[in-house]
Amino acid sequence: MTRKICVVVTARASYSRVRSLLQAISQHHDLELQLVIAASALLDKYGSLLHCIEKDALKITAKVSNSLDAENSTAAAKTTGLGTIELASVFENIRPDLVVTIADRFETMATAVAAAFMNIPLAHIQGGEITGNIDEKVRHAVTQLADIHFAATQAAAERIVKMGQQSEKVHYTGCPSIDLVFEVLNDPQLDFDPFCIYGGVGEVFDLSKPYLMVMQHPVTTEPAYARQHIQHSLEAIKSLNIPTLWFWPNADPGTGEISGAIRSFREHHEHQPIHFFKNIEPIHFLKLLKNTACLIGNSSAGIREGSCLGTPVVNIGSRQLGRERAHNVMDAEPETESILKAIHDQLDHGPYAQNHLYGDGNSGKRIANLLATSPLTYQKRLTY
Amino acid sequence: MTRKICVVVTARASYSRVRSLLQAISQHHDLELQLVIAASALLDKYGSLLHCIEKDALKITAKVSNSLDAENSTAAAKTTGLGTIELASVFENIRPDLVVTIADRFETMATAVAAAFMNIPLAHIQGGEITGNIDEKVRHAVTQLADIHFAATQAAAERIVKMGQQSEKVHYTGCPSIDLVFEVLNDPQLDFDPFCIYGGVGEVFDLSKPYLMVMQHPVTTEPAYARQHIQHSLEAIKSLNIPTLWFWPNADPGTGEISGAIRSFREHHEHQPIHFFKNIEPIHFLKLLKNTACLIGNSSAGIREGSCLGTPVVNIGSRQLGRERAHNVMDAEPETESILKAIHDQLDHGPYAQNHLYGDGNSGKRIANLLATSPLTYQKRLTY
Amino acid sequence: MTRKICVVVTARASYSRVRSLLQAISQHHDLELQLVIAASALLDKYGSLLHCIEKDALKITAKVSNSLDAENSTAAAKTTGLGTIELASVFENIRPDLVVTIADRFETMATAVAAAFMNIPLAHIQGGEITGNIDEKVRHAVTQLADIHFAATQAAAERIVKMGQQSEKVHYTGCPSIDLVFEVLNDPQLDFDPFCIYGGVGEVFDLSKPYLMVMQHPVTTEPAYARQHIQHSLEAIKSLNIPTLWFWPNADPGTGEISGAIRSFREHHEHQPIHFFKNIEPIHFLKLLKNTACLIGNSSAGIREGSCLGTPVVNIGSRQLGRERAHNVMDAEPETESILKAIHDQLDHGPYAQNHLYGDGNSGKRIANLLATSPLTYQKRLTY
Amino acid sequence: MTRKICVVVTARASYSRVRSLLQAISQHHDLELQLVIAASALLDKYGSLLHCIEKDALKITAKVSNSLDAENSTAAAKTTGLGTIELASVFENIRPDLVVTIADRFETMATAVAAAFMNIPLAHIQGGEITGNIDEKVRHAVTQLADIHFAATQAAAERIVKMGQQSEKVHYTGCPSIDLVFEVLNDPQLDFDPFCIYGGVGEVFDLSKPYLMVMQHPVTTEPAYARQHIQHSLEAIKSLNIPTLWFWPNADPGTGEISGAIRSFREHHEHQPIHFFKNIEPIHFLKLLKNTACLIGNSSAGIREGSCLGTPVVNIGSRQLGRERAHNVMDAEPETESILKAIHDQLDHGPYAQNHLYGDGNSGKRIANLLATSPLTYQKRLTY
Repeated sequence: MTRKICVVVTARASYSRVRSLLQAISQHHDLELQLVIAASALLDKYGSLLHCIEKDALKITAKVSNSLDAENSTAAAKTTGLGTIELASVFENIRPDLVVTIADRFETMATAVAAAFMNIPLAHIQGGEITGNIDEKVRHAVTQLADIHFAATQAAAERIVKMGQQSEKVHYTGCPSIDLVFEVLNDPQLDFDPFCIYGGVGEVFDLSKPYLMVMQHPVTTEPAYARQHIQHSLEAIKSLNIPTLWFWPNADPGTGEISGAIRSFREHHEHQPIHFFKNIEPIHFLKLLKNTACLIGNSSAGIREGSCLGTPVVNIGSRQLGRERAHNVMDAEPETESILKAIHDQLDHGPYAQNHLYGDGNSGKRIANLLATSPLTYQKRLTY
Repeated sequence: MTRKICVVVTARASYSRVRSLLQAISQHHDLELQLVIAASALLDKYGSLLHCIEKDALKITAKVSNSLDAENSTAAAKTTGLGTIELASVFENIRPDLVVTIADRFETMATAVAAAFMNIPLAHIQGGEITGNIDEKVRHAVTQLADIHFAATQAAAERIVKMGQQSEKVHYTGCPSIDLVFEVLNDPQLDFDPFCIYGGVGEVFDLSKPYLMVMQHPVTTEPAYARQHIQHSLEAIKSLNIPTLWFWPNADPGTGEISGAIRSFREHHEHQPIHFFKNIEPIHFLKLLKNTACLIGNSSAGIREGSCLGTPVVNIGSRQLGRERAHNVMDAEPETESILKAIHDQLDHGPYAQNHLYGDGNSGKRIANLLATSPLTYQKRLTY
Repeated sequence: MTRKICVVVTARASYSRVRSLLQAISQHHDLELQLVIAASALLDKYGSLLHCIEKDALKITAKVSNSLDAENSTAAAKTTGLGTIELASVFENIRPDLVVTIADRFETMATAVAAAFMNIPLAHIQGGEITGNIDEKVRHAVTQLADIHFAATQAAAERIVKMGQQSEKVHYTGCPSIDLVFEVLNDPQLDFDPFCIYGGVGEVFDLSKPYLMVMQHPVTTEPAYARQHIQHSLEAIKSLNIPTLWFWPNADPGTGEISGAIRSFREHHEHQPIHFFKNIEPIHFLKLLKNTACLIGNSSAGIREGSCLGTPVVNIGSRQLGRERAHNVMDAEPETESILKAIHDQLDHGPYAQNHLYGDGNSGKRIANLLATSPLTYQKRLTY
Repeated sequence: MTRKICVVVTARASYSRVRSLLQAISQHHDLELQLVIAASALLDKYGSLLHCIEKDALKITAKVSNSLDAENSTAAAKTTGLGTIELASVFENIRPDLVVTIADRFETMATAVAAAFMNIPLAHIQGGEITGNIDEKVRHAVTQLADIHFAATQAAAERIVKMGQQSEKVHYTGCPSIDLVFEVLNDPQLDFDPFCIYGGVGEVFDLSKPYLMVMQHPVTTEPAYARQHIQHSLEAIKSLNIPTLWFWPNADPGTGEISGAIRSFREHHEHQPIHFFKNIEPIHFLKLLKNTACLIGNSSAGIREGSCLGTPVVNIGSRQLGRERAHNVMDAEPETESILKAIHDQLDHGPYAQNHLYGDGNSGKRIANLLATSPLTYQKRLTY
């Protein structure tokens, strides 16, 4: 019998992470995809996913708008509570055989709680990793609620087992986000004009010459420093005077501070060679990432997708602390000087060799097959 | 500076579990108690706690009524989502320095998520234990969200460390619910008339002669069997014809089924020597438990408090599967014959020796002291 | 183009009120029915509607379980808030061209607010009537939010216009609940055994001999008196010693008190000739109402459906105060003596002539036609 | 006995409207003020009220953050639902004797529903007026839920009575927002530097020379036109080239469109003599309004406060359609030419005479006295 697999996407970044999995599920003979789009994935100001999904020819089963205004931690809690309520209704109406939740953003807790409490088997992608941030708590709590685990790395899989999960429920599949990287590696040309397609604000420049990329999110456990941290990054980029593509941050506690700092910077520093983008399509983002001289910030994309692309990355501050990495990443403190030094080192080094730490390009299909064949259970106990 | 310690009580059973801790906090020179009563703890049909709390001279800081009607798993998820929203508001208004959540009922997830997402240090009591039920998932997920852990047993403390928590954050304190047991052991006489004080329905009888007690909750991961399981227990008790005090179950998915089965049984079997109670005060419950010939059901009280009281216990089905226990517990399948056999064995055996597996009577004070002195942190990482 | 008409049913009683309308919509060539079942209509303990709906061959588009436990006024407010949130999501996903809300129970406010705030044209059935209770506030507030009005009586239609609504938006259609009464009048035989079909508890008796019916709800603005009021009714019925069918009340603030009083009465007065029912199918209820010697209580069914059936009715207390009525209704205070006197008067009088005050049997079709042809607008202004 | 009066403020604009009332309540011997700040009043991006309130030495009893992100109509409904839930909890915990709700923004419905459903007497300020927008529906629905009415104008009071409210419950008090206007009329000097105090973005200029003010909100029933309407206004202001203070709009469906249009305008038109402000203190706003050459937009401030100040006002579009007005207002279509013509006419005319249509400066005290002495009831019926 066909299994109904409900994948809940709560953020634009999560969509590109599981795009290959969504396609594998929708093409699998024994699976039916129920795609639910929720939370910040629906917010236009962070770049709506709906257009991408339409282009990918995927059908949305339900939309759940549950993001509270105010990017503070009270709002994060309430957004999650509201998501739990609304997803419970969705699950009651569409009755999935299994629910998939992705990674570790705070909203994923809503998916995990609703499914677990409703005795629906729960699969978790990207458990077992180590980072900073509230993500760390969320990720491991979701592991405890989940019934089947698809780990991105061998070390992550081992960690999930150490946390007391049955080893036959833990699968080292690689990360489906890497599947898309392999597509890009086959055709890495910058064959599109992001300024034209995505608009954004700021200077326009020639991407055939060296350019930087910045993607810096607030650290949810340090919201008080969000403004200060981003100012150091802005200062560093300004002093380099190299063309830069700057990507808007996630909807997190602290995002308002970051947006404010960027707006104020733009107000006081006209004609900098910086262009600011909101969401762009995953494949376009990866092509830019493949061709950039260096990615600066604290996004996991530098460490995960960057490792496979060989992109030089400067990782700032504590947000990715503990995350497994290849050689392409250099760390910097959230201070102008430290950031500048790391960028110069990376520009001196140039591109790195590809590294398959996070996947071999077949994770989506591998996970879809496991979803079709694994026993569907929702009772478990710690193994020790 | 005085620390504001917010304890969230979401069920009547949780209140008696932490009563000694609440008193220790309210009497501690460096601590201020913020008592929040929520969810089923506020529902009259399960026996309101408010009267007990008033008698204990504790002040309630906020009440949060968030229980959905319908004892099904959708309602459990929504109750938790609503609790997360409302507790976020409470925390924003009363700004605790630390939040305490208790054990593993599904509503405790609301407390844990709200506190963790708002960067408020979270303490968890009774983590690291193993049982059946959705409780198992909830308990370990809360451990991953919590910053400081107060384990009831040595084995539970070790398990929390194995789950990747820093050992200096894990304290083997014993369970505060045992503190009350020690009070009862000092004065175990049945010096009150429960029929007179608590009313209830059914026959009244002489408690100086042997009597049984039943406390059987639905298994939240097996709600479909709730009615059938309770019918086997009713059948067994009927055939024994020994005076029996029967306690109403928790508000859980499946409770409606149990209530229905009990009502139907009463409709068709008049004049059985069974009396049905809703909530009674903890100390009265423990005195009854000390003097009963046998406790039958699947409540943790038999295993935890029962071990210290030496009460013979018949534990039915999977709900307590894996929970650490002393010698006073015999298992039975949820079938009439199996239950009857185990009760007969326990009646033959009689009372057991006291066992201090779950605490030495000083857990409340011990935890209060740790709350006053432990570093208040809310950032952590798995230790491996 | 086919119009999508979303009817939100939030209580079992509302379903039978609009059953003929639902059928007329689903059979109308230019209309598509979107049936949403919410709130207490989903609660099994008040008698689930789902079975009736299935028998009627209607498809449910979405279920929304939003009833809070605890039958107090805080829960009524929260149930409505939660309903507003969840219905907003439903409307966003199913995009109706028009939403229909029924009568005046508190949950209907959720439907009205969600539709009005989302700029979806809102139709209201049974506006413009006068009664006691919170219903009075709800009914007229919904009128102010609604764009098109289907009044049950001529006087009600005139009142809606007086409230400032444009007269071309106000239609005197009669009440669709009366459509079903006409079906029953064509075939009024008691050709079924309610004891067999619906179970319930209490004595079984011969319905070919005179029997009473009781349906008494709490008055939501007087919840403190719910228990006392019902006790007077129980006392009156007991002293009459006539076989009585007693119907369980709605889920309202005060219902718990009523249930408690009934349970306690049954505990202390065995073998009374009273049988207690939860929900029964509308047509069966009407046949019983046609054949009863007298309906006692404060349900609107006595005044509305009863007028058309000619049923003698004793109306107790303030709940229906102000409601337009035919000659079949006598009033009583919520006191045993007053109730007894009125029942005796009605038994002396016997059945009344039919009265078409509330409808001529074609309201459902009439409303469906108006839904298909009326302009769809959602902007309006008071007419004065 | 002192009456506890709970005033719920859900928007920055509402605060200044009731500031004199809040002070009158807090100073009244028989009243105790319970001030609840909720919804967009708490959002920093619309300018937080918290600082103003602190300066006014008023104590906040509870904060309720319930605004959903996404300025669309689904979010408006959900914000209201969430507000209903949270305010129910607040009311349950603080137990007011009467709740006051202000005017007609969509969030006020949450206050009205929670209070009415909880049987708490509800007072409504600014009922009975006529305007466009969803406000029109909200305002009259709140009237039907309210028990006591404080109307700003004689005509509004008469309309409330016509809607079926008892005339002894309807008081023509004038609008408390006008009380502050009288303070300003006593001391109208621009004795502060808004650029220095409030920051904002854009050019700085000399306010002793003629300047314009713009305050234009989205029309919630026409969100699709928000961007287009604001572009016409921007175009008109640009072509005039007169120094202009532009105030950020409310958090409403469509606000995102307006913000986007303003940002895009600023991106493409540097060095315009326009300064953009978020919230500024009410008294400062009124002084600016007293001294401006003309207020342009669709805010009610131009019609209400403007009438008393004699400020020339250009009112654009349908948002204030039907609102009672003095001679100081000229209407314009939401088109550049129409707006320009009206502004030129107003500049030619200059300041108007004061008009006391909306109040005589003593409304706050008058309402406070009525709150102290009026019977507290929550049951009512239409008068016809």
